[in-house]
Amino acid sequence: MSKVKNISGFPELLPEQRLVEEGFIDKIRSIYRSYGFTPIETPAVELKSTLSSKGVIDKEIYVLRRALKDPNEKDDEELALHFDLTVPFARYVGQHYNELQFPLKRYQLQKVWRGERPQKGRFREFYQFDIDIIARETLPIACDAEILSAIHKVFTTLSIGDFQIKVNNRKILTGLYESLGLNEEQRKATIIVVDKLDKIGTEGVEVELRNQLKLSDDIISKIIAATKIRVSPHECSQALDSLNCSHEQFLLGKEEILRLFELAPKDKIVFDLSLARGLDYYTGSIFETVMTQYPEFGSVCSGGRYEDLAGQFINKKLPGVGVSIGLSRLMDLVFKNNLAPVRRTSPTTLLITVIDEAQRVKCCEVAEIFRNLHVPTEIYPASPKLGKQIEYADSKGIPFVGFIDHSNGSIKIKDLATKDEETVHDIATWCDRIRNVQ
Amino acid sequence: MSKVKNISGFPELLPEQRLVEEGFIDKIRSIYRSYGFTPIETPAVELKSTLSSKGVIDKEIYVLRRALKDPNEKDDEELALHFDLTVPFARYVGQHYNELQFPLKRYQLQKVWRGERPQKGRFREFYQFDIDIIARETLPIACDAEILSAIHKVFTTLSIGDFQIKVNNRKILTGLYESLGLNEEQRKATIIVVDKLDKIGTEGVEVELRNQLKLSDDIISKIIAATKIRVSPHECSQALDSLNCSHEQFLLGKEEILRLFELAPKDKIVFDLSLARGLDYYTGSIFETVMTQYPEFGSVCSGGRYEDLAGQFINKKLPGVGVSIGLSRLMDLVFKNNLAPVRRTSPTTLLITVIDEAQRVKCCEVAEIFRNLHVPTEIYPASPKLGKQIEYADSKGIPFVGFIDHSNGSIKIKDLATKDEETVHDIATWCDRIRNVQ
Repeated sequence: MSKVKNISGFPELLPEQRLVEEGFIDKIRSIYRSYGFTPIETPAVELKSTLSSKGVIDKEIYVLRRALKDPNEKDDEELALHFDLTVPFARYVGQHYNELQFPLKRYQLQKVWRGERPQKGRFREFYQFDIDIIARETLPIACDAEILSAIHKVFTTLSIGDFQIKVNNRKILTGLYESLGLNEEQRKATIIVVDKLDKIGTEGVEVELRNQLKLSDDIISKIIAATKIRVSPHECSQALDSLNCSHEQFLLGKEEILRLFELAPKDKIVFDLSLARGLDYYTGSIFETVMTQYPEFGSVCSGGRYEDLAGQFINKKLPGVGVSIGLSRLMDLVFKNNLAPVRRTSPTTLLITVIDEAQRVKCCEVAEIFRNLHVPTEIYPASPKLGKQIEYADSKGIPFVGFIDHSNGSIKIKDLATKDEETVHDIATWCDRIRNVQ
Repeated sequence: MSKVKNISGFPELLPEQRLVEEGFIDKIRSIYRSYGFTPIETPAVELKSTLSSKGVIDKEIYVLRRALKDPNEKDDEELALHFDLTVPFARYVGQHYNELQFPLKRYQLQKVWRGERPQKGRFREFYQFDIDIIARETLPIACDAEILSAIHKVFTTLSIGDFQIKVNNRKILTGLYESLGLNEEQRKATIIVVDKLDKIGTEGVEVELRNQLKLSDDIISKIIAATKIRVSPHECSQALDSLNCSHEQFLLGKEEILRLFELAPKDKIVFDLSLARGLDYYTGSIFETVMTQYPEFGSVCSGGRYEDLAGQFINKKLPGVGVSIGLSRLMDLVFKNNLAPVRRTSPTTLLITVIDEAQRVKCCEVAEIFRNLHVPTEIYPASPKLGKQIEYADSKGIPFVGFIDHSNGSIKIKDLATKDEETVHDIATWCDRIRNVQ
């Protein structure tokens, strides 16, 4: 027999956990669809040259090789597993540009792979759940607001605890830093340093700005002061005014974020001037979502606006805005902290018991009535003592057990939680009632 | 810019196709859940030694390698992409045996990868959708019937044309061949030859049985005669009697298949004694599903019963029965032959138009009412002429367009197919009506 063990970094869920994960996926997907996002899926495999085109770190990429090649087989172009969904999506839009309608709103739920060294807590295979809106030439700020509304609804609906969506705008940071006299290189470096605030603290940021960027104390204190601004959407305008900045980019960013807040939900949203996000890529709105009880966990959903989705694949200006939920990481947080009930190993609502194999055909017919009324129903596959059948339902978390009286065809149903029993005269009514409880 | 091209064997769908594929997945999954199958997912990656444990052809396996390793990094145990869902499921059951409840009913939809040489029509990445029921020690025939009922319901519900599920039982073949005097090696070889009937025809089978297996003309004619038996479930008993076989295995197989037919649907099912299936693995019921209009396409859903799921991973007897739908292949058939309508690039039902940005907040509020009533609704992100907004809806296949009269808050909705317009006074009633049409 082969030895069986977990491979570090490749998470695997038990059925009761996977049921919860599928439930989360269904809820998120249903919300995204309700906003008109359409599903896109790309192969897990891309040409390695496609993935490397953005200058990513090669050592995080898994390359594929056929375990055994035919002796006279020529080398194939190198294939590799995608490490995120952004590069494949950009390649997809570039490749299928003429077959797509814009604005394009897509959701994409797929696994991605990172060639990390095996180490505790690092996933090498995990789910990402992305949405983006892409337009030709110009993308209205209404799209940023739609992204913000959608993720606000997702985290409200998942009901896994209090959350906060931090919002900022890169133009505000750019304008502010430029008005302090920073050149482009310094501005980019400053954004990368400020992005580390949660990890290295205010003092750490000060040290790096002083030692690495050689900024003056006066400028550093102004940068630090700005990072202290964390206010509700209602207070955003006043907070920005307090900075006394009249730089064009700053004012443009202010206009964008005020319009964004006008169109999006207000609660759970915070205007956070310390939010920087490391990537060069972003040009306007930026978002991060944290679970309030677990700040050390970092962001569970991040993203923002960019001006050029697919420049490396097509000669078109395609601005976009989007966010990505790190679903596997989120599920890890959920399971480790019991943020969702994990109590069933089966989607079955009703188990029909069988006391005599001669009556199984009738049991199958009855089960089919319940199924057609959208109540998942299974039939015990053998006919041991009823106690054993009820035990099976109990062990899988199946809430109801049905008993057919074959002398008159009546059905008695027992609620295993309350121990209540009732004879069901109208199956459709019972199903309606139960579906709303489940 | 990078060159963008398709990689042969890695299919990629346009949004309108992926919407159809997701619709198929939702329907199949919903049916499997209605029978109480629970979701299981394994990582795409296994130890190569796990995948090779069944003696598969190594050259079909894709092995992973980090594109760039740290200089002093030790070699990791070799990782590879799974090539089917059966081996990973067996490993899963072996590994988590003590945490699972039996009988275990699981569905599993995942991509699998085959390291084929690039060639037309061969997928190197594709979806499989499997269900299985696994028991400890003994598995009642009622489980075979449940598998048969479930796939019957799947192909009925998908409505992609007439289908036929071919059913046979390995014990019948074994008993029949043994009663003709064939030893174990000959029986296995005969099953492999008979399995090729569709490809090489009756004469081809005769030639191979004569030349390779050295069987006598009398035995060959009896084997061939049996392959002609293809009857409805009702005629199965009589057809088997006509073979005058009293071998113990034959009679056991007959008992099993008659009970199976008693518990399962009767239409679209055929008892087909020519059905052999190549794999050694099967020990009882075997199934294959063909789309009647496309016999040359072969089976779209196959499986059967086996006595030993996970013997290479755990010292337990775990009999099971299951089938696998080759989902990507099925979608290929569907798209190439227009078996399902592909007409929308968006899940949106209603587009709310915007004629003045000052009214966008109100439009967002109205859209949210529709969404909360489960009608996917989007808002045009800018405010160009109405004609352009309607054109957008038309191009994406969005069926309804809404116009808000901001002077009195009333909503007029136009059906783009019929060109009918109506003023909607009761949004909930309108949504109920529309949901049932969509």
